[in-house]
Amino acid sequence: MTTPAIILCRPQLGENIGAAARAMKNFGLSDLRIVAPRDGWPNEKAYAMAVTAKPILDDAKLYDDLHEALADLNVVYATTARDRGITKEVITPPEAARRLRKVPAGDKTGLLFGNERAGLENDDVSLADCVITIPTAEFASLNLGQAVLLCCYEWFKAEDHTPVSKIEHNPIHRKPTRQELFQLFDHLEGELTRTGFLFPPDKRDHMSRAIRATIHRAKLTYQEVQTLRGMIVALAKGKHRAQPKE
Amino acid sequence: MTTPAIILCRPQLGENIGAAARAMKNFGLSDLRIVAPRDGWPNEKAYAMAVTAKPILDDAKLYDDLHEALADLNVVYATTARDRGITKEVITPPEAARRLRKVPAGDKTGLLFGNERAGLENDDVSLADCVITIPTAEFASLNLGQAVLLCCYEWFKAEDHTPVSKIEHNPIHRKPTRQELFQLFDHLEGELTRTGFLFPPDKRDHMSRAIRATIHRAKLTYQEVQTLRGMIVALAKGKHRAQPKE
Repeated sequence: MTTPAIILCRPQLGENIGAAARAMKNFGLSDLRIVAPRDGWPNEKAYAMAVTAKPILDDAKLYDDLHEALADLNVVYATTARDRGITKEVITPPEAARRLRKVPAGDKTGLLFGNERAGLENDDVSLADCVITIPTAEFASLNLGQAVLLCCYEWFKAEDHTPVSKIEHNPIHRKPTRQELFQLFDHLEGELTRTGFLFPPDKRDHMSRAIRATIHRAKLTYQEVQTLRGMIVALAKGKHRAQPKE
Repeated sequence: MTTPAIILCRPQLGENIGAAARAMKNFGLSDLRIVAPRDGWPNEKAYAMAVTAKPILDDAKLYDDLHEALADLNVVYATTARDRGITKEVITPPEAARRLRKVPAGDKTGLLFGNERAGLENDDVSLADCVITIPTAEFASLNLGQAVLLCCYEWFKAEDHTPVSKIEHNPIHRKPTRQELFQLFDHLEGELTRTGFLFPPDKRDHMSRAIRATIHRAKLTYQEVQTLRGMIVALAKGKHRAQPKE
């Protein structure tokens, strides 16, 4: 599968071209096409913004005319914030990503972005299959670099299999065995009984179960169980030191 | 539901603070908290970048210390690109958004972002419930403003009901009735028969059906049907004009 080209049509600020390149690199895109940039090309500010995405700027293709920039592409979606009063399908960025991922192998795709001042002209939009509009709360106009970022992010996310939740796992941080947990319960409850915290006796079982529930919820590692037991020892010692023996 | 606070911990560049404010406004957030900004506060470059999000900067709260900035919050997620070698849950931005949307009414939430140079320190991360890491293709470090944007975007998207696809609908662009479509078919097929395009006769029905399928797929509006019929009239006339009558 070829990754989508990012086509910036008459961009004004080098910073945004650099930010677009950086976003592309973050999310695995590489084909940057720049049509008639206002401040010429190459642009120093674009390079300053791109950080490690400079190779994408080095490889960027420059065009005078949007038709040339799109000529070899089979599928083109135009991004716009405004309703154009024309009858054209408008899709969200995740829907665009889903469709781009389903394009037959060999077909080339592209995402088209207008400039900072006014976005794409209606004539530019008329060259695209359909329109992507990024849903926003208000102030619909996103910064150019930000619009490119969100589209690249959605494209990447459409085939990303990062688990929605995981625990960073350090090898020394294995889960405790039940036996190790039971030893913690016994140790803690023993000390708490001794200091009179688990009192009166008829509440003791209920209180113990509540404490065990807290400990289970914390999903302690073996290491943390050991640390906790060390803390209990230290606190219990402190108690004895601070109060004279009866 | 209160919207999440965005907490920027020791940010360096005013531009990024402004970009964060702009992203917040785009996606309906408003509570910006700035901890020990390197270049002081207020910051001219932040205001230049914020465009119409300036009120968010005006209302931003300034803190010397991260503990103060988080004090009134019930739920805090820390964003980081790096594995910290500690056993802490790591979630994706959409999962974070889903959880933030489920926090009981009245509980206050926040998203914590580190600075441009090194992100959050381990000590900062230790104050948060869990960690958000934005999945990337490579070069995992996102620009600060971009990281804020993606988290705000996901928060907004979690309750956004924009249809994944819709047709921009201009009132004059009603769908044609079947009768109006049939008139188009008859008109087009009649002219194509007259010019000899629908030939030989035994292929005619198959060709007609293929043309009708193309027309259906285009999902024409009534207006477009009329335009198309005008084009057929013009083209048919042209043909007659160009060729001498037999």
